[in-house]
Amino acid sequence: MRLAAFTDYGLRVMMRLAGEPEGTLTTGEIAREFQISYHHLTKVVQDLVRGGFVQTRQGAGGGIAFARPPESITLGEVVRYLERQHALVECFAANGGKCLLTPACRLKGKFYEAQNAFFAALDETTIAECVYSGAETRET
Amino acid sequence: MRLAAFTDYGLRVMMRLAGEPEGTLTTGEIAREFQISYHHLTKVVQDLVRGGFVQTRQGAGGGIAFARPPESITLGEVVRYLERQHALVECFAANGGKCLLTPACRLKGKFYEAQNAFFAALDETTIAECVYSGAETRET
Repeated sequence: MRLAAFTDYGLRVMMRLAGEPEGTLTTGEIAREFQISYHHLTKVVQDLVRGGFVQTRQGAGGGIAFARPPESITLGEVVRYLERQHALVECFAANGGKCLLTPACRLKGKFYEAQNAFFAALDETTIAECVYSGAETRET
Repeated sequence: MRLAAFTDYGLRVMMRLAGEPEGTLTTGEIAREFQISYHHLTKVVQDLVRGGFVQTRQGAGGGIAFARPPESITLGEVVRYLERQHALVECFAANGGKCLLTPACRLKGKFYEAQNAFFAALDETTIAECVYSGAETRET
């Protein structure tokens, strides 16, 4: 069971922002601090903006800020959003997939229950509770 | 959140075998019936043998049979086994990954809980309860 690196990075960004309430941290600064691709992180931040989680302000003193209080954003909400195009199994895809067992499959409902249990567990925690301040980053 | 197609196929094989208790169904027959790659399915069956779930018998009247009663095998057990090399997030990998947040990350424990909830839900159901007999396969 895997989450996309895109989702992982989105969570890292939000945890880091929760440690910088002034909203002056930029994508470039986070990319450098975490040593991950700036190009990739730009797309992640754009998607977080699209999802209504953060907003960006250009220019001097600008940066990424929460669009909603991090105390109101659960991990489950963020992961559901960022993973929205990744189907757990073939038949969960928007087009239904090509699995020939689908009409009589007794597994699909079990997978829905398990996926719901996964997200429900993540709904128990907010981004604010996972705050990460830059000072904690390990030396390399 | 995605499972590997390899895992999906492994479950399809076991559901199908549960509907054929004589143990005379071959990998080739299942591949044809489900219209999936014989080459890929051979590797899946080899891995199920390695995991102690099924055994194969060569020659006339041979095929794939359960090594343990399907009533004793849970979905959770099979998925944990087949997904054993796929880390949910980078830091779950055997080598620990390269994420710089790891030492002070408050997210990792939450992901463990969520992953456990996912598997616990799948542990509620056995392969025998997901039996799939060939007659149910839809026409294409």
